[in-house]
Amino acid sequence: MHRLEIVAAHVSVSPAASASSPLSDREVMEQLQHLMDADNHDNRQRIFRIARQHRDLFTPRFNVALAAHRELAYRRLKTLCEGGVVSVWDFIRNPANVFTVHEAVGILGDPGTATKLTVQFNLFGGTLLQLGTDKHHGIIPDVDTFDQVGCFALTELGFGNNAVEMQTTATYDPHTDEFIINCPTPLSQKYWITNGAQHAHWCVVFAQLIIPSLSSESQGVHPFLVRIRHNDRRVCEGVTIEDMGFKIGNNGVDNAKLHFQDVRIPREHLLDRVSTVHKGGKFESTVQGRRQRFVIQADQLLSGRLCIASMMLGQTKLALTIAVRYSQSRLCVGPTGKSDTAIAEYQLQQQALMPLVAATYALTFFMTECKHKYAQLNALRQDKAAPKDQIDALRYEVLLLCCAIKPMMSWHAERTASICRERCGGQGYLACNLFGEAITGAHAGITAEGDNRVLWQKVAKELLDGVQKGWKNRKGLADTGAGEGPVRVSRLLAKREVMKGRALGASMLKTGGNSGQIFEVWMRQEARLVQELAEAFAEKRCFEAFADVVFDTKMRKLQPVLLPLLDLYGHMLLHKDAAWLVANSLLTPQEVGELPPEQDRLITQTGQHMGEYIEGFNVPKDLLFAPIAGDWVNYNDPKRPMHGELTV
Amino acid sequence: MHRLEIVAAHVSVSPAASASSPLSDREVMEQLQHLMDADNHDNRQRIFRIARQHRDLFTPRFNVALAAHRELAYRRLKTLCEGGVVSVWDFIRNPANVFTVHEAVGILGDPGTATKLTVQFNLFGGTLLQLGTDKHHGIIPDVDTFDQVGCFALTELGFGNNAVEMQTTATYDPHTDEFIINCPTPLSQKYWITNGAQHAHWCVVFAQLIIPSLSSESQGVHPFLVRIRHNDRRVCEGVTIEDMGFKIGNNGVDNAKLHFQDVRIPREHLLDRVSTVHKGGKFESTVQGRRQRFVIQADQLLSGRLCIASMMLGQTKLALTIAVRYSQSRLCVGPTGKSDTAIAEYQLQQQALMPLVAATYALTFFMTECKHKYAQLNALRQDKAAPKDQIDALRYEVLLLCCAIKPMMSWHAERTASICRERCGGQGYLACNLFGEAITGAHAGITAEGDNRVLWQKVAKELLDGVQKGWKNRKGLADTGAGEGPVRVSRLLAKREVMKGRALGASMLKTGGNSGQIFEVWMRQEARLVQELAEAFAEKRCFEAFADVVFDTKMRKLQPVLLPLLDLYGHMLLHKDAAWLVANSLLTPQEVGELPPEQDRLITQTGQHMGEYIEGFNVPKDLLFAPIAGDWVNYNDPKRPMHGELTV
Repeated sequence: MHRLEIVAAHVSVSPAASASSPLSDREVMEQLQHLMDADNHDNRQRIFRIARQHRDLFTPRFNVALAAHRELAYRRLKTLCEGGVVSVWDFIRNPANVFTVHEAVGILGDPGTATKLTVQFNLFGGTLLQLGTDKHHGIIPDVDTFDQVGCFALTELGFGNNAVEMQTTATYDPHTDEFIINCPTPLSQKYWITNGAQHAHWCVVFAQLIIPSLSSESQGVHPFLVRIRHNDRRVCEGVTIEDMGFKIGNNGVDNAKLHFQDVRIPREHLLDRVSTVHKGGKFESTVQGRRQRFVIQADQLLSGRLCIASMMLGQTKLALTIAVRYSQSRLCVGPTGKSDTAIAEYQLQQQALMPLVAATYALTFFMTECKHKYAQLNALRQDKAAPKDQIDALRYEVLLLCCAIKPMMSWHAERTASICRERCGGQGYLACNLFGEAITGAHAGITAEGDNRVLWQKVAKELLDGVQKGWKNRKGLADTGAGEGPVRVSRLLAKREVMKGRALGASMLKTGGNSGQIFEVWMRQEARLVQELAEAFAEKRCFEAFADVVFDTKMRKLQPVLLPLLDLYGHMLLHKDAAWLVANSLLTPQEVGELPPEQDRLITQTGQHMGEYIEGFNVPKDLLFAPIAGDWVNYNDPKRPMHGELTV
Repeated sequence: MHRLEIVAAHVSVSPAASASSPLSDREVMEQLQHLMDADNHDNRQRIFRIARQHRDLFTPRFNVALAAHRELAYRRLKTLCEGGVVSVWDFIRNPANVFTVHEAVGILGDPGTATKLTVQFNLFGGTLLQLGTDKHHGIIPDVDTFDQVGCFALTELGFGNNAVEMQTTATYDPHTDEFIINCPTPLSQKYWITNGAQHAHWCVVFAQLIIPSLSSESQGVHPFLVRIRHNDRRVCEGVTIEDMGFKIGNNGVDNAKLHFQDVRIPREHLLDRVSTVHKGGKFESTVQGRRQRFVIQADQLLSGRLCIASMMLGQTKLALTIAVRYSQSRLCVGPTGKSDTAIAEYQLQQQALMPLVAATYALTFFMTECKHKYAQLNALRQDKAAPKDQIDALRYEVLLLCCAIKPMMSWHAERTASICRERCGGQGYLACNLFGEAITGAHAGITAEGDNRVLWQKVAKELLDGVQKGWKNRKGLADTGAGEGPVRVSRLLAKREVMKGRALGASMLKTGGNSGQIFEVWMRQEARLVQELAEAFAEKRCFEAFADVVFDTKMRKLQPVLLPLLDLYGHMLLHKDAAWLVANSLLTPQEVGELPPEQDRLITQTGQHMGEYIEGFNVPKDLLFAPIAGDWVNYNDPKRPMHGELTV
């Protein structure tokens, strides 16, 4: 088998000459890193320690056969699990850790490992924990160690964005007290099932629950725990598993199509937190209505979106770290025509990279807010005394946040990876420099756990519903002590959201609640506004999360470092939607004209400290496997002793 | 060896119900296809015929080992060459064909084959033809049949965008009447050399020409024909060839690092159209100055940019064809909640895809103009009677066009592939549906034959120089009989270019011609404006090329079909730069506000004929290897007889 092994270069890159910054103070840098790392700092470092201890295993490999690629991702995750870095119980004890682990694994640069992680712990383990009851929790210790591998079968070939219409059935048989699982059509095959093609023993199968004695109609989609492989990995009877084959990326993941034919499972394998089927066929549910039941059952997709966003954040920090370090060491034409000037000093390079850096800072703080809101919600749910309307309000906000940040973060990850690739030129095109996996990893994030555009439809819908219910999604910035500039940006962003929301609301009102008309207007007339409203919400919340940190009085030492980035981010947001803002009299043409030069000024100001801002991401230098992040000249020396590794 | 074979589905997709269009008239459609295919129609079809005759060979394969992947690309190109679809002599006899072949090979969906093609015929063959003299042309017949394979070694590890500073030397030895080729440092390795790692027998090596009896200084960069492999593929003495390894895409291409140590070649192997070294060391050159000599020697990069743009155009047409056909057959939630509505009918899908379709039409016509201008220039150069100032003026325009269209087209190809992938969801993520190769293929295009951003610096520089020399780059639209709307857009685009040009010119004037100051302003203060000026030029020319076709009186039947696309494209261009246009009083805020609804109207109008517009691309249905472009339900049927091919 041919392979290309990557050797980490341990040589540090000397930063471009630059004016001094508060970040050259070690203490300030450490404070920044601590802030950016958000929570579970020790555990994050533990993950990196494990990767160091198993350096060979975690070294990226390319041009490996599919089976070997999957074995690599499996072993990487198994090694992390054996290190005890995460548990399914964290959803109750320490939810933020679930997401932080995703980010740290994202930093390790293999989206395949991160994807297997998220299915095992969030979709499979999390569903077992939250939709199952005590009798289903027995295997959680083996899930934590990855000894029992699980998968999650919601999506069907024909039903991606309309899963409530799925066709797989679980029919109750009172004679044997079992459910019988069937996929009646090609369109009802379970599709894209991560961990399914090689490793999973268990599958949470979503199916239409049918109790013939009650009705031939479904009682709605419910989750069932189904064994699909024996412990020795033989596939169980009635289960057909087909490998999805080669993908544009993430080939460490063993995605499968699953097909069930008369697969019988004990009645107790219905995950029965929401609905119960009693012996003989009596049906009870705490939730009325098929669609509502589905929404509750698919709840784990919510935390799933935070998991995806977290791993996207990790891979974005990695990509930017690699690109900036190369930019600092790559010399090209200077004032005299000689190749003596680091490309990091070019305004072109700074204008490409610094906006991505600023957005990554903003999204880091937005991520922190989302994680903590999610954790708060989980804590509230454990609290028997918590008032229902408080839970409902928080659940509403968490729903909005999860559906807002995943699209924003995954698109940002795609743009970042793609632009970093481009700005590193040919070097960026070599697989060993890791932008390829970042681009295709981001693509997986864009349509995983809900197509980004569909999630933004959800955000817009929830915002309109929320207005009707009188929910406020956030207070605004004015009272946080923020400076005039950010307060103004925040006001503009809030106003934009309200105006776009009102415009969409007015269009929807005209439908008179007629469902055909609602479809017509929502899907065929106002698609642009629907997306814009969600974007306005997401960007406003992200900006405010960033501003909250910058103006936190405990952050005084960091303020001079963070404020120009916040300022830059605010200008970027306004500039991006300047056409709408000026057309709606929120900015004057003159103000619009002042945005680009002001951005340029901020980019030049922050760009000279590019390397220090990247250090804030705290990506361990010794785990930067990309040769261009280190001494790439030596790496390319034909006389270098370890040279043979490059040949394939 | 594991592999995934793709089976073409021959089943046609029924278009979404739609109002009738002039394009349902067979004759109109054929006229459109003929127009879009531009030139060399028979040869284009011959390429598709060869692919059909060698269907197995041209069927995309994934998860193949690197060596096998390269063998595939090699055999595909060899088969096309044996079919006689292109000759190096076409640069003189029929230049448009060189580019058309690139587009058609792009449509076949393997960027690796297209890349090997462009190096063999343009960079290697073309340089041999145009910089060599009769004595070098003997091997051209074997280059045409791909029996003798060539490569082109300009780029060095340390000198990508500053190749004039390269370090490889060719030193004349009067005792043996030979040149001695040397790479003195790791940075001077020839890097990224396509065809180098496995197949090339010959290499055009660019090196600093040193004639010790004249000077220890270089006489400038010159091209030398160097044998690097014997006919049996053994590597020649003194040549070290290292495989570049796995890349993020284009893995059918055998890229190499080449290192030369004391490699001796006959004096006659200097390609001596520009400079000659006589026996004993007398040096003559038709061009004065090192940098100017380099520019002339690297001339083949100009046509190379049209080659890259052409293959990008082909892959873009393919990606859109696949995405639209899937959109027409993929059913999702409809007015009643059932999955009964093709996603092509969603405004969301139309708003994602139709702007790409409109831009692809525009770029097709822009491409046609560029090809024909290039052909005109080559014809003029053959014509001994042609006046020098006419050649100079045309060369100036061709230079601008080549440096403008390659960036525009390759970025468009990247965005198209990426958005098509996203809008096809999970299906788009399967390698067999071909968006992965399209994304990474586009990335190769973005930095090949000149980094896009560097080329746009070149465009801006040439535009400023041209203004000083009094060159006009084009007449404008007003006198073409175009309607009021397009004339207005064209005027705005022309005005924008002039204003941005003036602003940049004014900044540069302030430098007083001081070279340090020029660098400071160009590279560190006005980088945004430099890029914007080039973009303004490129977009103006592209829009005008489109408008010229639409208002060509011979195109009357097509006008109702093309005009709304032109209109949409014009609105897109204005909207993209609305912030600048409104800040500079070229649009009022109200006019800016009218752009999005008007775009939406045009998208809805054209979107209902999405399928017909795609048919205009004339991508052969039986060569659409992506399963989702055909009957993907049957392809996924677990009971399908040929099912076994999917397993890996």
